[in-house]
Amino acid sequence: MSHLYDDHLCRHAANFAPLSPLSFFLRARDVYPHRLAVRYGELTFTWAQCYQRAVCVASALTRRGIGRGDTVAILAANIPEMFEAHFAIPMTGAVLNAINIRLDAATVRFILEHAEAKAFLVDKEFGPLAEAALSELANPPLVIAIDDPTCAEGSLVGELTYDALLDEGDPDATWAYPSDEWDAITLNYTSGTTGNPKGVVYHHRGAYLNAVSNALTWNMGEHPVYLWTLPMFHCNGWCFPWTLAVNAGTSVCLRAVRDRAVFEAIAEHRVTHFCGAPVVLNTLLSAPEELKALVQHDVKVMTAGAAPPVAIIEGMEALGMEVTHVYGLTETYGPVTLCAWQADLWGDEDASARAALKARQGVRGQMLEGLMVADPDTLEPVPQDGATMGEVFMRGNNVMKGYLKNPTATDEAFAGEWFHSGDLATWHPDGYIQIKDRSKDIIISGGENISSIEVEDALFNHPAILEAAVVAKTDAKWGEVPCAFVTLRPEATLTVDAVIDYCREHLARFKTPKHVVFGELPKTSTGKVQKFVLRERAEALSKR
Amino acid sequence: MSHLYDDHLCRHAANFAPLSPLSFFLRARDVYPHRLAVRYGELTFTWAQCYQRAVCVASALTRRGIGRGDTVAILAANIPEMFEAHFAIPMTGAVLNAINIRLDAATVRFILEHAEAKAFLVDKEFGPLAEAALSELANPPLVIAIDDPTCAEGSLVGELTYDALLDEGDPDATWAYPSDEWDAITLNYTSGTTGNPKGVVYHHRGAYLNAVSNALTWNMGEHPVYLWTLPMFHCNGWCFPWTLAVNAGTSVCLRAVRDRAVFEAIAEHRVTHFCGAPVVLNTLLSAPEELKALVQHDVKVMTAGAAPPVAIIEGMEALGMEVTHVYGLTETYGPVTLCAWQADLWGDEDASARAALKARQGVRGQMLEGLMVADPDTLEPVPQDGATMGEVFMRGNNVMKGYLKNPTATDEAFAGEWFHSGDLATWHPDGYIQIKDRSKDIIISGGENISSIEVEDALFNHPAILEAAVVAKTDAKWGEVPCAFVTLRPEATLTVDAVIDYCREHLARFKTPKHVVFGELPKTSTGKVQKFVLRERAEALSKR
Repeated sequence: MSHLYDDHLCRHAANFAPLSPLSFFLRARDVYPHRLAVRYGELTFTWAQCYQRAVCVASALTRRGIGRGDTVAILAANIPEMFEAHFAIPMTGAVLNAINIRLDAATVRFILEHAEAKAFLVDKEFGPLAEAALSELANPPLVIAIDDPTCAEGSLVGELTYDALLDEGDPDATWAYPSDEWDAITLNYTSGTTGNPKGVVYHHRGAYLNAVSNALTWNMGEHPVYLWTLPMFHCNGWCFPWTLAVNAGTSVCLRAVRDRAVFEAIAEHRVTHFCGAPVVLNTLLSAPEELKALVQHDVKVMTAGAAPPVAIIEGMEALGMEVTHVYGLTETYGPVTLCAWQADLWGDEDASARAALKARQGVRGQMLEGLMVADPDTLEPVPQDGATMGEVFMRGNNVMKGYLKNPTATDEAFAGEWFHSGDLATWHPDGYIQIKDRSKDIIISGGENISSIEVEDALFNHPAILEAAVVAKTDAKWGEVPCAFVTLRPEATLTVDAVIDYCREHLARFKTPKHVVFGELPKTSTGKVQKFVLRERAEALSKR
Repeated sequence: MSHLYDDHLCRHAANFAPLSPLSFFLRARDVYPHRLAVRYGELTFTWAQCYQRAVCVASALTRRGIGRGDTVAILAANIPEMFEAHFAIPMTGAVLNAINIRLDAATVRFILEHAEAKAFLVDKEFGPLAEAALSELANPPLVIAIDDPTCAEGSLVGELTYDALLDEGDPDATWAYPSDEWDAITLNYTSGTTGNPKGVVYHHRGAYLNAVSNALTWNMGEHPVYLWTLPMFHCNGWCFPWTLAVNAGTSVCLRAVRDRAVFEAIAEHRVTHFCGAPVVLNTLLSAPEELKALVQHDVKVMTAGAAPPVAIIEGMEALGMEVTHVYGLTETYGPVTLCAWQADLWGDEDASARAALKARQGVRGQMLEGLMVADPDTLEPVPQDGATMGEVFMRGNNVMKGYLKNPTATDEAFAGEWFHSGDLATWHPDGYIQIKDRSKDIIISGGENISSIEVEDALFNHPAILEAAVVAKTDAKWGEVPCAFVTLRPEATLTVDAVIDYCREHLARFKTPKHVVFGELPKTSTGKVQKFVLRERAEALSKR
């Protein structure tokens, strides 16, 4: 029905612009040209320089025929070129596909083929991997070698170097702002513990909004000094390259995340913020005391990617690092929920209770529109009783466009017009969600659901245990029973019985692992424990 | 041209939601139900209560036939009902029209007629004004009286009270989220120093984005305590009702802005943020010392609405209140530029130099897409030399939809697909703009442009001068000359010659006022000096 407000109030360039993080990049260049955008060892680029370099890369690629809807892949560590690519590639209209550097050549080849990559930027360190991936490719992309004089390993592969590409570019070139905010901006392949990886497509609108969401969620303020411990090939570094354009921060790049390098960078550059999976935080906590003593100022840490054990949150906060716990998936541009801290309600709790509250995945961030724990078949929300388990569902502008060239998987993920996360959780009376497991990782023993995460959390609290993973093992009597795989801290010793006794003290009896295996845990390229491998091992165990 | 990313990656409820500030309202209710949303004297509402009340108001109005595209007007001070209306009215699909309480009855009548208001909420204090405005109205709206037991003046007008409306509402009612983010959300009439006011239409997308822009620009963090000194009928309080839903802050409401009430509220409720035009800040600076001494914590002040004299910025900062200077118009949802503080460049300047830097209107905020100073005919940007004058132009999602039922004015305002602000400015080499005058207020003397603001700024610095306004007066020899109207501080005395001598010391000779008149300044209902009245007085002067 037409009404008063429908008449002659239309959109045009004066009152409508597609949402794109490129707008923040332009603004950082205009308002803070002299501020440091990137630091990598001795190398620094201001926002003016970073913008100039991105324009040159974009213009050179445009001249070489890269344009809207093309894919440009990159295989690189967290180096300045990787950061620049998050702006330069979208400036051509193309889609950035940052590939996980820990993948094998066959998977990299699969991705290059599936994404139909037209250009491929390869960091020297990963030259051999790229070469192997490219070897049998029917339609090889234009390959550009990123040379890094500080990198001793690897080899340069490609027709030209990144620096030569920069020289080809026109620093005064104009570039096309996206005409539609729904246009794809990046492509991120899921790590895929089984089967081929799926290509998650992000758009400019979602990247814009999640970049802002990070800044709001974390109250980052202007000019944060952000340390790149989180790989930029992981959900585009949770959208933080774009967040750092929102608030004109400095990216401190690191080729490799090792405890000494992290602590020294934090101290030397007065890092204010960094992100990392719990495993990264665990590495830092296990560092020698003299390294930990380097940090004498306030540092904020954002963690996600797995439920952080209470012990890790407590340990980080004891180090003076305030932990913000967030949650999301590749399909949601990285973090979209956070365990919002209720200072007025929780301020008086002791450190351990605070850490337990903070271990929950929490509530929707400002830019997510819907979050629920519900029955996966009926989409009926579960009661907010902190006990009933259901699947986590999301809705919002920071949920992916879909999976590239995979309509079946896309339709399944969006069945009922909610995004199916595949994560199982309970919903607490205060509205906070708590992940209990991946759907496929839940253990059903004697008709009772056992959260593998809950058992792992109990194991983590044992002072001799460095890491633990718990999976289901077929059992004649109970259907399934928990089987624990445990890595001990260096020098520590522990018996199977001691582990089982410890669990009996801290868990309900039916949740106590019936089997305990010591040793290293198999992990995916993103550092996630490969539970399907452990499940095979557990089953093999029972056949002996 | 179709490409890889066009296929089966469409939008639906799981990955697309219209941007609307109602999303922030829902989230504040969900995540911070127990937190204070509103405080008004002894009265307080949590976010849960505030949401509940808004649902009841929305459901009662919906039952009475209010729906999408209808206008609901409100005439109220900064009281809780005014805050609630910013959510409740959009929840019905209708458009909120907050009317300036200082207008005369004829103008209020014009607005109600022009906006075709279907309902009209009237604060007791303004009952008589509303009654006069309604008296000759052909299609009177449903009138609802807002009773306020703490208000001694006025009268209740209308068919029912707001409390009765609340009782009619269904607390469990569902309400319709806007299906299109381009839908109108509010209507704000410009104060219009001449002619009929124009109705500026805002949409949900713009309200969402500018609400976020405020939170980012001001680094507000979570749970600010915000004092309502800025009228909510002024660009919807610069979108701050919605910003306070983004960060779950507390609105401290005040019926009238008087120095004692402001200072006492700041101290008692530990106010962290407030906004005000320079004239409000001037009132605070002129308050007795014992009031100013009440403020013992950090308070952040946002100012706009007129170029703040350097003396006011300096004075507020001496009081320990950090001033953020922003700029915008009714047509841009309130503030869209800010004088972003460059701590690394300006940190060592003295207080007076810092205030002078801060008096500039600055750069675009994160959510504005384009800002330029340009020739109004050719739209050619002026050189960034800090000297060449041009008109300020904006582009972005926080620029209005247009003027209601006024296609001619809309087309003029958007000619060339830029919004014409009507403000004249220079553009500094660092990219900061500085407003010199409204187009119509510039004084052209002997072919030279004289900024009335520059002359006023010089006058303001004189310790005996409280306020000053400078306008053009026709002059046989020079074409125009500056004529100054000056209000002295209480007890102060000054002669015309002393004023002229003072200006000669601080200004170029051709900028020195040729005439000086002492007395009160005529102002519009929003506190702006009515220069057209002064121009008439100046011309009358020359005929004597």
